[in-house]
Amino acid sequence: MGKIGVWLIGARGSVATTAVAGAAAMRAGLAARTGCVTELPDFAGAELPGLGDLVFGGHDVVDTPLVKRAEQLAAAGVLPATLPGPVTAELEAAEARLRPAPAGGGRTAADQIVADLREFGEGLDHVVVVNVSSTEPPCAPHPAQESLAALEAHLDVLPASSLYAYAAFRAGCAFVDFTPSTGARLPALDELARTAGLPYAGRDGKTGETLLRSVLAPMFAQRGLNVLSWSGTNLLGGGDGATLADPGAASSKNASKQQVLEQNLGHAVDGEVHIDYVPALGDWKTAWDHVLFEGFLGARMTLQLTWQGCDSALAAPLVLDLARLTGKACRDGVAGPVAEFGFFFKDPAGDGPHDLASQYAALREWANR
Amino acid sequence: MGKIGVWLIGARGSVATTAVAGAAAMRAGLAARTGCVTELPDFAGAELPGLGDLVFGGHDVVDTPLVKRAEQLAAAGVLPATLPGPVTAELEAAEARLRPAPAGGGRTAADQIVADLREFGEGLDHVVVVNVSSTEPPCAPHPAQESLAALEAHLDVLPASSLYAYAAFRAGCAFVDFTPSTGARLPALDELARTAGLPYAGRDGKTGETLLRSVLAPMFAQRGLNVLSWSGTNLLGGGDGATLADPGAASSKNASKQQVLEQNLGHAVDGEVHIDYVPALGDWKTAWDHVLFEGFLGARMTLQLTWQGCDSALAAPLVLDLARLTGKACRDGVAGPVAEFGFFFKDPAGDGPHDLASQYAALREWANR
Amino acid sequence: MGKIGVWLIGARGSVATTAVAGAAAMRAGLAARTGCVTELPDFAGAELPGLGDLVFGGHDVVDTPLVKRAEQLAAAGVLPATLPGPVTAELEAAEARLRPAPAGGGRTAADQIVADLREFGEGLDHVVVVNVSSTEPPCAPHPAQESLAALEAHLDVLPASSLYAYAAFRAGCAFVDFTPSTGARLPALDELARTAGLPYAGRDGKTGETLLRSVLAPMFAQRGLNVLSWSGTNLLGGGDGATLADPGAASSKNASKQQVLEQNLGHAVDGEVHIDYVPALGDWKTAWDHVLFEGFLGARMTLQLTWQGCDSALAAPLVLDLARLTGKACRDGVAGPVAEFGFFFKDPAGDGPHDLASQYAALREWANR
Amino acid sequence: MGKIGVWLIGARGSVATTAVAGAAAMRAGLAARTGCVTELPDFAGAELPGLGDLVFGGHDVVDTPLVKRAEQLAAAGVLPATLPGPVTAELEAAEARLRPAPAGGGRTAADQIVADLREFGEGLDHVVVVNVSSTEPPCAPHPAQESLAALEAHLDVLPASSLYAYAAFRAGCAFVDFTPSTGARLPALDELARTAGLPYAGRDGKTGETLLRSVLAPMFAQRGLNVLSWSGTNLLGGGDGATLADPGAASSKNASKQQVLEQNLGHAVDGEVHIDYVPALGDWKTAWDHVLFEGFLGARMTLQLTWQGCDSALAAPLVLDLARLTGKACRDGVAGPVAEFGFFFKDPAGDGPHDLASQYAALREWANR
Repeated sequence: MGKIGVWLIGARGSVATTAVAGAAAMRAGLAARTGCVTELPDFAGAELPGLGDLVFGGHDVVDTPLVKRAEQLAAAGVLPATLPGPVTAELEAAEARLRPAPAGGGRTAADQIVADLREFGEGLDHVVVVNVSSTEPPCAPHPAQESLAALEAHLDVLPASSLYAYAAFRAGCAFVDFTPSTGARLPALDELARTAGLPYAGRDGKTGETLLRSVLAPMFAQRGLNVLSWSGTNLLGGGDGATLADPGAASSKNASKQQVLEQNLGHAVDGEVHIDYVPALGDWKTAWDHVLFEGFLGARMTLQLTWQGCDSALAAPLVLDLARLTGKACRDGVAGPVAEFGFFFKDPAGDGPHDLASQYAALREWANR
Repeated sequence: MGKIGVWLIGARGSVATTAVAGAAAMRAGLAARTGCVTELPDFAGAELPGLGDLVFGGHDVVDTPLVKRAEQLAAAGVLPATLPGPVTAELEAAEARLRPAPAGGGRTAADQIVADLREFGEGLDHVVVVNVSSTEPPCAPHPAQESLAALEAHLDVLPASSLYAYAAFRAGCAFVDFTPSTGARLPALDELARTAGLPYAGRDGKTGETLLRSVLAPMFAQRGLNVLSWSGTNLLGGGDGATLADPGAASSKNASKQQVLEQNLGHAVDGEVHIDYVPALGDWKTAWDHVLFEGFLGARMTLQLTWQGCDSALAAPLVLDLARLTGKACRDGVAGPVAEFGFFFKDPAGDGPHDLASQYAALREWANR
Repeated sequence: MGKIGVWLIGARGSVATTAVAGAAAMRAGLAARTGCVTELPDFAGAELPGLGDLVFGGHDVVDTPLVKRAEQLAAAGVLPATLPGPVTAELEAAEARLRPAPAGGGRTAADQIVADLREFGEGLDHVVVVNVSSTEPPCAPHPAQESLAALEAHLDVLPASSLYAYAAFRAGCAFVDFTPSTGARLPALDELARTAGLPYAGRDGKTGETLLRSVLAPMFAQRGLNVLSWSGTNLLGGGDGATLADPGAASSKNASKQQVLEQNLGHAVDGEVHIDYVPALGDWKTAWDHVLFEGFLGARMTLQLTWQGCDSALAAPLVLDLARLTGKACRDGVAGPVAEFGFFFKDPAGDGPHDLASQYAALREWANR
Repeated sequence: MGKIGVWLIGARGSVATTAVAGAAAMRAGLAARTGCVTELPDFAGAELPGLGDLVFGGHDVVDTPLVKRAEQLAAAGVLPATLPGPVTAELEAAEARLRPAPAGGGRTAADQIVADLREFGEGLDHVVVVNVSSTEPPCAPHPAQESLAALEAHLDVLPASSLYAYAAFRAGCAFVDFTPSTGARLPALDELARTAGLPYAGRDGKTGETLLRSVLAPMFAQRGLNVLSWSGTNLLGGGDGATLADPGAASSKNASKQQVLEQNLGHAVDGEVHIDYVPALGDWKTAWDHVLFEGFLGARMTLQLTWQGCDSALAAPLVLDLARLTGKACRDGVAGPVAEFGFFFKDPAGDGPHDLASQYAALREWANR
């Protein structure tokens, strides 16, 4: 089988750089496959595209070279200090396939993206576009988002993430949204994906607080314990921390965090979610959750969690997993949202279970069928 | 269908008193069914014995009346301050069915227990014996524990919990061990249960730290994250805290706590478990867990948990669940260990899955088949 | 020496009710003096007014009787279940001295408050007015707040807490602000207090997160450790939680929380403070703090804290301490802000040290001089 | 003024290597003085020996070169990745002054240590011997430890740390014990130090859990709050973790941790302290403390702390501080224990206050007098 192109929107960001460098390190035998779901024994028979089948390219608005970005990440402790050196060639190869993100929006930008994707796709079996750029504010609704026909005359109503999804489908590529942005989640784009026979998945990678919520909330439900409140505070440095400290950008993320609780508990739950920008944390994030619950005869009890993780290290292997799985979906001719990829997302596209255990089972079954 | 007897070993303890008072409160409409697994919609069609079908009796070595014990628990905030009053009649009815635990061991004690159970079982459909007494130290192995024939000549090699299991099976009763004691977990007793056509379940109710471990360890495994260490400290007041502060008694409990990790992660994990007796905590317990794990490219990350719960409030509804489910097992003629009850236990009897999600699914399916 | 009147603004609130009931319980020998600073050996020689010398009265906008409020607090676990009964007579005696808070503001309301205070003060040596009502939003600046002469013509520019301070001084009473409201902290009111020869103190009782900050921030400073960020989340139920969930009302509180850090560390520190209203917590509050600091050669380290306390139980004994200490200040003829009471406050009036240890030393010395 | 020699027992350990490399880095302007108490403005006028006046040497039982050790620490993230290179010359200079720790004990070993110290001291004003080697088990009492005369005939009753103290004093050097080992804390050695006119200090550097206890326990005391239990769990990797996981070696450390509570609270407190060896943590340590306390009217409340620190980064600057301060003590002719150095220690020699704030004040005053 042939190559799978992985086109990263935000290709010079920490997550993308870590994914590209990490894939190279694993291929070279310099790093274990820790954190890669598709490397688990459960997926050994799934005939997924191999790490060696992935070819990286992408768009970004900044132009710091990938090699430089990798050195910065190594200095910050995100990548091993010894890593960037041995994978310089692979980073430079990806660098040569990066293109500047088109300025502006609408039809002109879309055409440019389509052209870039088509050029990239030459000689590749399939291309998966993965959005790992900064989180957008929620997009304003517009009637033209409701159908493909209407949309074609109003591409300017699309936020950037959705313009990329549009262009991806027009260029015959699959689309994965790892951010909480709108991406492909508009009726007109869903119509386009189905019409074009292309899969998409998203949104908002589940790498910390929400991951924990998707295993702990089912536990409370299955034990008949009544969750009275679930509060969370997230401290983030790095680019996404700065973006999400803006209440507008944070609102869609927070909504999906509380939604996971509601879906798993069967009722809305009191409690707020805060995202604070703490620059000194760099690429590290800390989440504290406080759960107040009621047990037998009304006894009040609590659970507290503190999760301290490296954002890029948590996200990057999932980007590789999604690239490989979506590559398989392309090969299999899947069209529309792949609900079975809900395991990876806070706010999954398509209808699927909300607890992590069922999501894992659905993913495993999908991959091995 | 008829009545199910619930014979509590340690009938005047906090868990037993809370279970008896709580069952009465729920029957009288004075308390919600929070914390009761068998009251979840998933079990609505399972035709389990109703709360109103349960009749309580039991053994204990102390003789403080149940009404007094309930008042003590209300003063300590374990039971609602307003509860003991309205359920006095039910507590007194159970009181009349309590018998002193036989002194000594061996044949004489076994015969006494059998006689007490037979008397109690008059007019009841089935009797489920539930061990909620203090944790024993691990029992010394003896060849006579290996077969029923050998055992009959050496009943004195049985620790108290196993003598109760022996007597339960001899008296035609099911046996549930909610403690980490040996109970029915000896080949000779398994043989007896199967011969007598009686179900048993256990051991060591999963109500806090291990409950969390059985949902979080699978999460790490399913994400391909490499757990490097998992350390835990448990602070307990109350009777079980005093018992478990003894390293001998704690060792079986700690072994099952780490075993849950190993079973779910697929490898042994560094880290100790401490159980400290903190008298001022009374019936409350606090567990702190620290997990050090490795992600993509070796990034080190941590998860910390603090669980603050009321031991009796967590355990008592599960005792009622197990009584009802085991009553159904009796009705259905199940013999030997009921692996599908693994959802409730740290160290489940029989072969079953180790992650809570699969355990819940197995239980639900068993109950509804 | 004679009696000291304690006039509570918000007299039917949880803090006030707990203070009145607790004082009665201690006088009757029904409760230990835990939580009372003035009962420590360091204050044994200070000749403070005794608990038996305190006479309680106050204003409130609600009219639930104190006895009823005490029963509510006992049901919620704030007061011991057995307490309200034995102190009914004392609660009823205080009840008889409560007056409805005057509606409206300005001169009419001030006159009413003065009249109520004068009536209350009959036969008492001194009266200390203590504000334990809900937190106000920050007050809008107005030129008339700058001098007493200007203020007299514009009493309507005063927020409620400041109108009470004005009336207190006019009636010859001392004033203590236990809330973050403006209270006596205006130049015109300071002038009035000094002119009238009356002491005042405040503001914002230090009972949890800020208390911890005032001992931990000095530790970092004295060890030369560089605090990079200090973030906090407070979960509160109860009336003050609802009030403080309003960003306007919270802003003055949050400002003083971060100011304590700046004063002790010598520089501003990154990090936000959140106050979330979690109704199910009732009178309980949980504060989580996360401190990121840098040590030798730039090593990054963290401290996390979780404080779980009962707001009224933390505040009420300090109200009694402040009543007794301010009573002594009245006897000693102290006029203006008592800087030595900074030990009790987040944002102390007057010039004093900012670390708790020095504040304690200053208080002890003041009391014993 | 002249040079101060700093003779490190355990000179190739993580703390010593970090101290030597860090001193060089700071002298070269490559690192800020973060974590150095003697660099605070409060000590600017104290006329302490400068960092440039320190000359390092020492004993160790291992022979890995300091340069290699520094590279290992940089790879582990304890030292900055960029640090070892620029300070190679200083590490090699110290390397040349290291001597193998004498095998065996008693008189022969003592004589060897004395000879090594005398050789090292040539041309230096004073020498301060600092014990930063592994923790010893508690030493068995022996009558010969009670007086210098008796001791001289029985040097073999001394544990290694005390033999070093003996030899230090015999060689005219000051002695600082940064570990919980016995060191100079025997009557015979105190007599020797006083006779020889030499200062000593110790023991057991206060760098984490106990540091926090020495500021938080006074807070509870000053607020009249009744601490019911104080429990702690310490997770350590590195050499000291392995040593302290041995209950014998841990016992002296744990005793001093609980003693700090008793001294500050005025009464013994329930609660255990655990030290777990978690190899994967490397030089990092995590301490969790749980405090249960009682407030007004018996309300139960809790404080939890998690401290995550790099052991060497916390200890090394204090070793430099102590070297400089003890150098001053030598210059000033101080003999015997320097109680004013209690700020640095869990179990301070001499009579001094137990709360950190008073300890800091005492140190500052001593340094500036």
